[in-house]
Amino acid sequence: METEGKVIKCKAAVAWEPGKPFSIEEVEVAPPKAHEVRIKIVASGVCHTDWTFLHEVGKTMNPQPFPVILGHEGAGVVESVGPGVTKMSKGDKVIPLVVPQCGQCERCLSPKTNLYKSAMSKIHPDAPLDKVCLLGCGVSTGYGAAVNTGKVESGSTCAVFGLGAVGLAAVMGCKAAGASRIFAVDINPDKSEIAKTFGATEFLNPKDHSKPIQEVLKKLTNGGVDFSLECVGNVGVMRAAVEACTPAGGVCVMVGWTRIGELTLVSEDILLGKTLKGSYFGGWKSAEAVPKLVQDYMSGKLLLDEFVTHRLTLDQVNQAFELMITGKSIRTVIKM
Amino acid sequence: METEGKVIKCKAAVAWEPGKPFSIEEVEVAPPKAHEVRIKIVASGVCHTDWTFLHEVGKTMNPQPFPVILGHEGAGVVESVGPGVTKMSKGDKVIPLVVPQCGQCERCLSPKTNLYKSAMSKIHPDAPLDKVCLLGCGVSTGYGAAVNTGKVESGSTCAVFGLGAVGLAAVMGCKAAGASRIFAVDINPDKSEIAKTFGATEFLNPKDHSKPIQEVLKKLTNGGVDFSLECVGNVGVMRAAVEACTPAGGVCVMVGWTRIGELTLVSEDILLGKTLKGSYFGGWKSAEAVPKLVQDYMSGKLLLDEFVTHRLTLDQVNQAFELMITGKSIRTVIKM
Repeated sequence: METEGKVIKCKAAVAWEPGKPFSIEEVEVAPPKAHEVRIKIVASGVCHTDWTFLHEVGKTMNPQPFPVILGHEGAGVVESVGPGVTKMSKGDKVIPLVVPQCGQCERCLSPKTNLYKSAMSKIHPDAPLDKVCLLGCGVSTGYGAAVNTGKVESGSTCAVFGLGAVGLAAVMGCKAAGASRIFAVDINPDKSEIAKTFGATEFLNPKDHSKPIQEVLKKLTNGGVDFSLECVGNVGVMRAAVEACTPAGGVCVMVGWTRIGELTLVSEDILLGKTLKGSYFGGWKSAEAVPKLVQDYMSGKLLLDEFVTHRLTLDQVNQAFELMITGKSIRTVIKM
Repeated sequence: METEGKVIKCKAAVAWEPGKPFSIEEVEVAPPKAHEVRIKIVASGVCHTDWTFLHEVGKTMNPQPFPVILGHEGAGVVESVGPGVTKMSKGDKVIPLVVPQCGQCERCLSPKTNLYKSAMSKIHPDAPLDKVCLLGCGVSTGYGAAVNTGKVESGSTCAVFGLGAVGLAAVMGCKAAGASRIFAVDINPDKSEIAKTFGATEFLNPKDHSKPIQEVLKKLTNGGVDFSLECVGNVGVMRAAVEACTPAGGVCVMVGWTRIGELTLVSEDILLGKTLKGSYFGGWKSAEAVPKLVQDYMSGKLLLDEFVTHRLTLDQVNQAFELMITGKSIRTVIKM
């Protein structure tokens, strides 16, 4: 059936109000206007930020309009394009990007930032969408935090705090950069095995130690790690990650997002020579980087399959959230 | 009179207990032991850290033994050397270094840090000691914070908070790096003129604005400066300096030291792509850098004379502290 130019009907998980389960409904989608494309989403990872949006909007997040259809870690196929679209055609496989890249504005041209003012990323036609959707958010974020933002060095010591998909991707980034020791830190002992799959050399559970974990790390590394990456989004863990770095040029990368609480630091601890950096979407220039990351996955340089612990259908979306919040999944991919 | 190998008598400003004025007394100095040298101090800058040591020891600073002879921004001449000293001889002009550099340990060999575990810096024989003493602490600290730690870039926008000797030296560093706009920020309006001497393009007094100064800076620079340098040592100002940076790769360098209060930040503000770095002694590898900075002064590349607003004798040391605390001096040099 030809759908181009027509209003179509799609199945969607609709969030009608904050804090309530999704309702699976049929919605209408208008045809694309000028410079728009309409995408058939084939698969989507379930990301913790979706949960935050649903449960913390109006609290830690700014108020947002409801009802809303969530899902920002998707991959799909262009169904039709609106007038003026020249870089995409019907049938292209694409990953919609959280962080856009127009390629023309001042910030797009700066090597120092990937925050753009004004996306979509056409990817390899053979890419399996139920895997590469993870490159739309979580995996790119963690991997890039290590290789782009932190610029982890060969032979260095690293600590990654929080072993969800973002943290495990950060572990993978530290390994790709040639780190000699990678401490993977999580309070969930079940994360030990999978952390080693991605390259961790040691697993540390803060609950197994009477001293704060930063003290344990400082002792294990003669004063602190060269690079620490916070992938939780908790201001207490951020402080621990800063304190776990060596004063001799240690770098702490903040990856985890939160608006709960403020980050408090001992200023003197930074003063002696530490660096604290923020990483957003792994520092990648999104539209040019994501297709390359897809290629890296297809050539075996990047692990993706190992992140996908659960595959569910759209009808099971509420279960996917439950698995995430209870720490039972790394990533659930919803196939449409 | 030949003094080598003998106990000598010297005039010193002795701090007998915290918070009390110095007492000018005659003290005995033993001859140098193995690997030691005895230096005749010719001139010394009066640094705010001396004041902190005297007035905050046991409060914000760790307890230290009293009585004590302060002064860590001095320059002098080697009077005699102990057994085993090979790199120094009697008559050498030297700057004793706050941050040592042995040249051999792991940290000395790392390009990432200037914190060493185990100094003295022989300088050009024609160097005027009553000027180059300032390179032993304040001026090197501020100048290096801009050029080494921050790596201020040509054409960038900068803001320097706090216009004591350290802050003015940071302004000079931003100018040397080719910054296009340098905002000099201080609550003392008397600092406006001297800030321009060192290269500031604009002077801002937070007291002249109803909005917080970081908001004023963001408005003036379309979202924030590329580089901000905190040269006060106040956690509130540190936060302002972080907030004044552009989220698009802004760098905040912490130079001012304090132990009063903790630095509180909105973590999200860092997350989007800011960097916070600490700078200690301007990131210089001390023993190799200070003699080069002395040469830069002698060849006219670095201003030093302009920092010295007052010259006093050792007997007037309490007056020097008064001038500093009331904001009337930039640097007082005590000549012996």
